[in-house]
Amino acid sequence: MATDTAPPSTADDSDGSYIQPDVDVPALAAFLDGKYVEIRNLVRSNLVEHASILEEAETLSRDDYRERVKEIVLEMATTGQTGMGFPTELGGGGDIGASVAAFETLAFGDLSVLVKVGVQFGLFGGAILQLGTREHHEKYLPDTITGKLMGCFAMTETGHGSNVQALGTVATYDVATQEFVITTHGEAARKDYIGNAAKHAELAVVFAQLEVGGNSEGVHAFVVPIRENGKPADGVRIEDDGAKMGLNGVDNGRLWFDGVRVPREALLNRFADVSAAGVYESSIENPNKRFFTMLGTLVQGRVCVGGAGINAAKVALTIATRYAVRRRQFEASTDGQEELLLDYGMHQRRLFPLLARTYALHFAQEVVADQLHDVFSGATDDEQTRRELESRAAGTKALGTWHGTRTIQECREACGGAGYLSENRFAALKADTDVFTTFEGDNHVLLQLVAKGLLTDYSSEFQDMDQFGLVRFVAGLAVETVIERTHVHKLLERVKDLLPGGEEWDQEAGLLDPEYHLTMLRYREEHMLGAVARRLKRGIDNDMNPGEVFSRVQDHVIAAARAHVERLVLEAFIEKVRPLPDSDMKVALNLLADLHALCAIESDRAWFMEHGRLTTTRSKAISREINSLCRKIRPLAVDLVDAFGVPEEMLRAQDLIGD
Amino acid sequence: MATDTAPPSTADDSDGSYIQPDVDVPALAAFLDGKYVEIRNLVRSNLVEHASILEEAETLSRDDYRERVKEIVLEMATTGQTGMGFPTELGGGGDIGASVAAFETLAFGDLSVLVKVGVQFGLFGGAILQLGTREHHEKYLPDTITGKLMGCFAMTETGHGSNVQALGTVATYDVATQEFVITTHGEAARKDYIGNAAKHAELAVVFAQLEVGGNSEGVHAFVVPIRENGKPADGVRIEDDGAKMGLNGVDNGRLWFDGVRVPREALLNRFADVSAAGVYESSIENPNKRFFTMLGTLVQGRVCVGGAGINAAKVALTIATRYAVRRRQFEASTDGQEELLLDYGMHQRRLFPLLARTYALHFAQEVVADQLHDVFSGATDDEQTRRELESRAAGTKALGTWHGTRTIQECREACGGAGYLSENRFAALKADTDVFTTFEGDNHVLLQLVAKGLLTDYSSEFQDMDQFGLVRFVAGLAVETVIERTHVHKLLERVKDLLPGGEEWDQEAGLLDPEYHLTMLRYREEHMLGAVARRLKRGIDNDMNPGEVFSRVQDHVIAAARAHVERLVLEAFIEKVRPLPDSDMKVALNLLADLHALCAIESDRAWFMEHGRLTTTRSKAISREINSLCRKIRPLAVDLVDAFGVPEEMLRAQDLIGD
Repeated sequence: MATDTAPPSTADDSDGSYIQPDVDVPALAAFLDGKYVEIRNLVRSNLVEHASILEEAETLSRDDYRERVKEIVLEMATTGQTGMGFPTELGGGGDIGASVAAFETLAFGDLSVLVKVGVQFGLFGGAILQLGTREHHEKYLPDTITGKLMGCFAMTETGHGSNVQALGTVATYDVATQEFVITTHGEAARKDYIGNAAKHAELAVVFAQLEVGGNSEGVHAFVVPIRENGKPADGVRIEDDGAKMGLNGVDNGRLWFDGVRVPREALLNRFADVSAAGVYESSIENPNKRFFTMLGTLVQGRVCVGGAGINAAKVALTIATRYAVRRRQFEASTDGQEELLLDYGMHQRRLFPLLARTYALHFAQEVVADQLHDVFSGATDDEQTRRELESRAAGTKALGTWHGTRTIQECREACGGAGYLSENRFAALKADTDVFTTFEGDNHVLLQLVAKGLLTDYSSEFQDMDQFGLVRFVAGLAVETVIERTHVHKLLERVKDLLPGGEEWDQEAGLLDPEYHLTMLRYREEHMLGAVARRLKRGIDNDMNPGEVFSRVQDHVIAAARAHVERLVLEAFIEKVRPLPDSDMKVALNLLADLHALCAIESDRAWFMEHGRLTTTRSKAISREINSLCRKIRPLAVDLVDAFGVPEEMLRAQDLIGD
Repeated sequence: MATDTAPPSTADDSDGSYIQPDVDVPALAAFLDGKYVEIRNLVRSNLVEHASILEEAETLSRDDYRERVKEIVLEMATTGQTGMGFPTELGGGGDIGASVAAFETLAFGDLSVLVKVGVQFGLFGGAILQLGTREHHEKYLPDTITGKLMGCFAMTETGHGSNVQALGTVATYDVATQEFVITTHGEAARKDYIGNAAKHAELAVVFAQLEVGGNSEGVHAFVVPIRENGKPADGVRIEDDGAKMGLNGVDNGRLWFDGVRVPREALLNRFADVSAAGVYESSIENPNKRFFTMLGTLVQGRVCVGGAGINAAKVALTIATRYAVRRRQFEASTDGQEELLLDYGMHQRRLFPLLARTYALHFAQEVVADQLHDVFSGATDDEQTRRELESRAAGTKALGTWHGTRTIQECREACGGAGYLSENRFAALKADTDVFTTFEGDNHVLLQLVAKGLLTDYSSEFQDMDQFGLVRFVAGLAVETVIERTHVHKLLERVKDLLPGGEEWDQEAGLLDPEYHLTMLRYREEHMLGAVARRLKRGIDNDMNPGEVFSRVQDHVIAAARAHVERLVLEAFIEKVRPLPDSDMKVALNLLADLHALCAIESDRAWFMEHGRLTTTRSKAISREINSLCRKIRPLAVDLVDAFGVPEEMLRAQDLIGD
């Protein structure tokens, strides 16, 4: 079903066994949509119904654009699309996995709509659901789910982005009136970039340091009215964040609280409460553990943003691929016709590794969304599973959003000057997605969180550490018990065990053997982690300044975390494809999986050579194999992007891809 | 003069001889500004005077923004800033080097102003100056220089971006009326993305296929009135390109010509003319050579855009560095204070290689601007020098603009959510610079042009080939005479000669020896070029489809060109610093040069290992050395960005960098 001109035959690629598969696009699309095909299709049809927003985003004033986005969000809410994650008894859909699928699919369209949905139903509604108790649920959620009650999620402060534990807003319990008094202490403590705050939210879930009877109990969340009849509530100051690079359909704002009083019941008290008499009590003894338990319940936001980054990449790839089989440039042969862009090797090299990686991340995202569903549905809700989920969500979010940024940029450049016009999708895609790498956790900080989780696996001493635990760790916290020589040795033994058939195995395995791909990525992960542990220990042993030790090892920490997530992503791809019966679809997916895996190895081939896991001969062979895979994917490329199922109306770009 | 908190001492870096230099910021700034300090300072003060445009760009309607940009351009013209490149007798400044310096410096401010200046004075005025003769100069240039007469440069067509030789617009000579009749043939031939066309231009320099007496004479340029009293001229259809990702202060548009008649004198006839009787004559016999000679005179545009990309990167780096010595995040030590971002090793790794590369590209840009000045002032205007200039301009433009895109993105992410607000500079910087990698020649096409030039050095057979000559080349054009075995051998001998002291030299040289750095990059360049030549020849020998041969070798072609330009960039840096007397400034610049060189090797260390020029041990040592250099640069970083001399008013971003 390849619809474009087939490229010239590639004589020297024929290995005898390869027959070009015929891609059944609807079947592949169904495979990608998976069990949530129904909700995905509902979102697709909602997007198409409101497709005019793509144009309105350019033509309306900022105020009107915001109102229009709100309107659309409310209309989508009536279809049930946005309430999938809430319990059915409160008016929701009772299916967390479906709510993630719905959100991801929204990323095909205007991204202000997506983010507004995320703020209202994910962050605000999600915080009340996860941190509140029955009384809060019944009071707020039914109207939240319909959008009648709009709220915002006031966590981030100007001076405290990723370091939530250091927030400067304070909530002091006043036993005399049984109220909390909420105050912003200094400019660094103003709430900033808060979606829905500048215009539409009546309520805010405010994160503040709780003080009871002179004791500081750490960060807790409170429901605070910030706006009544369209005016800021008493003691609340609201400022508009103004124009942004993108997402201008979302009303981000700043909030200051000056002695704002809320009743004792405003505390979202699932994990901790304050009695009328002013006694603090919590089911979780350890304050760090309590903090991370509370924060951990909000992991859905990260899962959603990662998926959004991946799906935004699909839009860009669909446009760039379709353009490249339409646009000709320069005559290469002597037949008088210019060549199609996609027949150029360099163009294939620019787009296809990104295409393969998009498939890989799609399946990795499916795994983390399934885990989220299982944990929050109570199917598998032990502490270890939660920790794994949080780590995987952080890692997938970082890789998915970076991939979005990179893919959109490459696709824009691959569409030349036409890609620069707003009437095509790239302008909005690029501007709107840019902040994905920052919000819901800065990507670098998230990878540090992943690294902490990896070290934690070796010792439970780590698990109570704060999000930036490595820093505290090198400051001397239980160092000796954790990174003992024995642990490091154990680590290296594990690495050795990874190599079946002895040291030479990886030199002899087939380049297209998924076991080879996985073993390479596993080896790298284990080796990097061991090296980080050793370097941290050495620093401490040498009595270095702990901040300095961390600073010096930080790039290795991030690299180890990234290696871990890369391995998870590849594993997800391979495990998804392996069980498929032999079919043309399997052949096509294997081409993508092989391309993704070899590109992952190629892009870090220096490391593999440095660590004796790749000969220079084999390294060059991998690059050649990648080019060969690109040529095999060439005739399938349009089918492979069409299977993403981005509605035609979301592509716009008629100049680029035709009618 | 380091103004920020010094980082903790780095005990194990002390090699005994290193003493932290004290950077004299004004002296370093003067060194960077070089001989054009006066014009650069004029532009700086013009930018400050019109600083309100940075805000107006956000608040004005698109129409008003365009008018405002035009106003500013006209006001700047009165200061002489924009006319530096024109002869004094016509009202210009008579200094081409100064005109490039002025343009580059404009990149510190609003980039619509920059591009409008480029269109009016560089492209339109430049085409008349370079392709026209005295009559055209006297008729048009005095009013062009003041901006009283506005024009546009109508080369690009919707279906023909980089492949100018394939343009579809036709100019037919009508001997009866002694006129040219200009017509757009088909939608692919409409002129597109033409700056100044939608609103302000009265004239266009139109590139079209010249037909005389039934013969096609190739692409030539004509002065065509497109607008009279604000209305499109007869036979001219004008459409607005509408909203763009950025640069919305420039009125880009589309043009169609339907039998538009212009007098015989409208042909810009410096290189070719048509007599009244309809006889075509040219001083350049070979049509390809003629075409490239004409196009070559327009090289200044590329030199300017490359410089603009580099200078836009300076703005981003200044903001991100200042932010990173102000913003604290997470507590690493136990002193109760959070760490400054710039004290994190990862943050240094993100910013400092980009800082060093910005310095490197600054000096490389200085070299190409000097060459441009010398060639166009007639000081050194032989054909070989022109070819070198064109190749260097193409390469520096590609690397400079990619560097701009990458640096701005990294700096935005390094400033977190605050970087996303329009009140800071990143939103505009990112959106406005995005198209730099595409216009004035798509970067990949430009690198192919560089590669063609490199092969040309081996044989003059190449020099008449078209811009995409490699394609034609593999189609069989004089192959045997060019890439003979002997040539390839000669090439490899040259590579060998590069290594002083035999094969092992590169393993023993000091990591901070500039000769080592240069030899590594030279070796890579020569080796890659030889490999490309061999692969092309093999394809032809095997009777492969020429398009297919080129497609397969294309990534190597691009890599070879890039390697060549990287070598030129490093050479420019080293040659600039070497003659300096011993001083703190020299120490600081050498830190940057070493960092740049080692990062260049590190980022391609896999290739060096694959080709036996780097052991794994030495490769790891390079990475360690880079981290050590970053720590040495840390206390100097603010001074090093301040020396760029970006006016405070151009930084905005008070929330990021303070008042």
